[in-house]
Amino acid sequence: MGPGPSNVDPRVLRSMSQTMLSHLDPVFVRVMDDVQDGLRKVFQTRSPITLPISGTGTAGMETAMVNMIEPGDTVLVCTGGYFANRMAEIAQRAGGKVVRLEVPWGRVFEASDVRKAVERHRPRIVAFVHVETSTGTSQPIEPLAEVLNRDDIITIMDCVASLAGEPIDVEGNGLDFVYSGSQKCLSCPPGLAPITLSDKAIARLSERKVPVQSWYLDLMMLRKYWSDVRVYHHTAPISLNYALREALRIIEEETLPQLYGRHRLNHEALVAGLEAMGLEMFVEKEARAWTLNTVKIPDGIDDQDVRTGLLRRHGIEIVGGLGDLKGKVWRIGLMGYSSNRNNVHLLLGALEELLGEMGFVGGGGGAALRAASGVYRNAESQDAGIAPIPEEKPVRVG
Amino acid sequence: MGPGPSNVDPRVLRSMSQTMLSHLDPVFVRVMDDVQDGLRKVFQTRSPITLPISGTGTAGMETAMVNMIEPGDTVLVCTGGYFANRMAEIAQRAGGKVVRLEVPWGRVFEASDVRKAVERHRPRIVAFVHVETSTGTSQPIEPLAEVLNRDDIITIMDCVASLAGEPIDVEGNGLDFVYSGSQKCLSCPPGLAPITLSDKAIARLSERKVPVQSWYLDLMMLRKYWSDVRVYHHTAPISLNYALREALRIIEEETLPQLYGRHRLNHEALVAGLEAMGLEMFVEKEARAWTLNTVKIPDGIDDQDVRTGLLRRHGIEIVGGLGDLKGKVWRIGLMGYSSNRNNVHLLLGALEELLGEMGFVGGGGGAALRAASGVYRNAESQDAGIAPIPEEKPVRVG
Repeated sequence: MGPGPSNVDPRVLRSMSQTMLSHLDPVFVRVMDDVQDGLRKVFQTRSPITLPISGTGTAGMETAMVNMIEPGDTVLVCTGGYFANRMAEIAQRAGGKVVRLEVPWGRVFEASDVRKAVERHRPRIVAFVHVETSTGTSQPIEPLAEVLNRDDIITIMDCVASLAGEPIDVEGNGLDFVYSGSQKCLSCPPGLAPITLSDKAIARLSERKVPVQSWYLDLMMLRKYWSDVRVYHHTAPISLNYALREALRIIEEETLPQLYGRHRLNHEALVAGLEAMGLEMFVEKEARAWTLNTVKIPDGIDDQDVRTGLLRRHGIEIVGGLGDLKGKVWRIGLMGYSSNRNNVHLLLGALEELLGEMGFVGGGGGAALRAASGVYRNAESQDAGIAPIPEEKPVRVG
Repeated sequence: MGPGPSNVDPRVLRSMSQTMLSHLDPVFVRVMDDVQDGLRKVFQTRSPITLPISGTGTAGMETAMVNMIEPGDTVLVCTGGYFANRMAEIAQRAGGKVVRLEVPWGRVFEASDVRKAVERHRPRIVAFVHVETSTGTSQPIEPLAEVLNRDDIITIMDCVASLAGEPIDVEGNGLDFVYSGSQKCLSCPPGLAPITLSDKAIARLSERKVPVQSWYLDLMMLRKYWSDVRVYHHTAPISLNYALREALRIIEEETLPQLYGRHRLNHEALVAGLEAMGLEMFVEKEARAWTLNTVKIPDGIDDQDVRTGLLRRHGIEIVGGLGDLKGKVWRIGLMGYSSNRNNVHLLLGALEELLGEMGFVGGGGGAALRAASGVYRNAESQDAGIAPIPEEKPVRVG
């Protein structure tokens, strides 16, 4: 229950035991087609350049930067956490002139502020993070997308911690370069970074004057391997692509609305339990991610003692804060296969017990489990099914 | 039986079904330690920076170039094949001033020519390929290493197609930056690129004036994750590291001398069979790789027809030539788990049958199988074991 890798369905684990194939074998080519089709569905796009980069989420981030940025381009990076800072760092190494628009960690951006920054700096590229894994915020996409949907701007969005967990609708929002990682809500092992490009981003590739500084991540070549041309570029990680195909099949069986509903419900139950226990969430209600929950560590409680206790005694991993948030928050992931009622109950029970032993005077006495159960019962009464199904484009909770 | 990915031992496939762990979990940290120890053994080095890059072989190549080259450095690339050309291309994108020393495809370099080029161009970096997967040559390392072992030169060697298949002895040869891929003789699925750095290469990292252009492949950060400091950099591909650990265990059980002996023997048997069939090898005997065999396509025989026949009728994959060698040679891999007597016999039988049907008048009549069997019998009579065990530093055959 850390911020990823999330647990993986046994079907996905088993899929990796399939026999090795060559990266140009006709049977593997069908696997590639299935992976691309499945990714288009979760990204909600018809883009021809929708494929998994052969590296982890950070390789996806670097792919976006090195392919979209040409030396000297102004890049506006909306930074409110560790991974947005990483975006800025990588943009700089790609030759970009980086301008930062900042909010304090734990806050999200107002569209009006982004508009002002765009007017002032006239960036060629604007980059932001959807769900910031370091803070647990979920940036509302639509208002930003409205401001950024201009011919002269390429929008890069990081959805490493949200793809298949919270709605993103890449095509509907007119986002140009969107990347993710396989190991979070897709519940596939780490090692692949799904990406997708709009027509505008694809045009940008061929308009480049300077070659992409990375050969491994050069999309002008990669697109030829991941299309009917099938020109060899590098040896794709065969087994991980088996796994991603199986993970995408499971997602298609569950359907996206169900998946989003499940992530939201388990998040709400967890928060209700944590608050009933007397703990305080780090992020304001309206900006909270469903997939990654940050809760403040109460005064007098040792970060590491609690995490070690959870891991040793209960086999549960939660993770501490990054950077400035070290020792101040815990990060609890509810992603993909790991986002389920049992996990919520297990963690709440274990945490209540441990904190009680450490002298934390909060709710106690089972209040957390009662609160979480209440959320589940309420959801069941509202809907005949096991989880409330949001509208096609769900409105944010709270 | 292509040039990789090679087949994978079922033990390795099964290892990937193990449950997911976090990239900083104490149990996974032990996996990392095992992987690093195992890699040090196959590279034959004690280097502290010996680790798998989270990408395929080409990512290993790019890691070498972007970490060792600073803009403007003169880089001498010994090019005699497709992958050496790729090295030159990547060196250029990393800001290197690339000088090429060329031999025709299928030939290897003389130390005297390399010495002359070094004296003339005074390069800061010299790069060469050990086994060139596009041509089937194996560059003798020792003579080149003697020329290149100087304080002012960083030597980069590609052993993607030879690590654990042919002797390399990184430390003994004083090589500075050596990289490989997981999917060839290591017989692990593709997706990891083992690398190792000498003290001189490690010193070069800290002497850099310009940051490494790639964040994902920046060894100053990666080394902190792959050491006792364990500073988070990116989420390692957990399942592939399970697989690599298991693959390295299998190698340790077989022992390196046995492994080299097996690769050499199966290569010799295959060549004897191909030649008995009336086919001609592309590379001169003394420069032939044991792991990747290139054989000329006889006049009047269609490249694709034969490969399609092998794949459809026998389930055997061999691969055509790259670049200038397209339509002129077949490439037959005998790597790791795939390098075995059954594969040699299967391919020879199938190829003899297909070529006979297509009107090729070669040896025919089972000559290929008899020749191969002769090689195996001869080896058995020379040695009580199943394969001749070469000396600690085996002398090249022929």
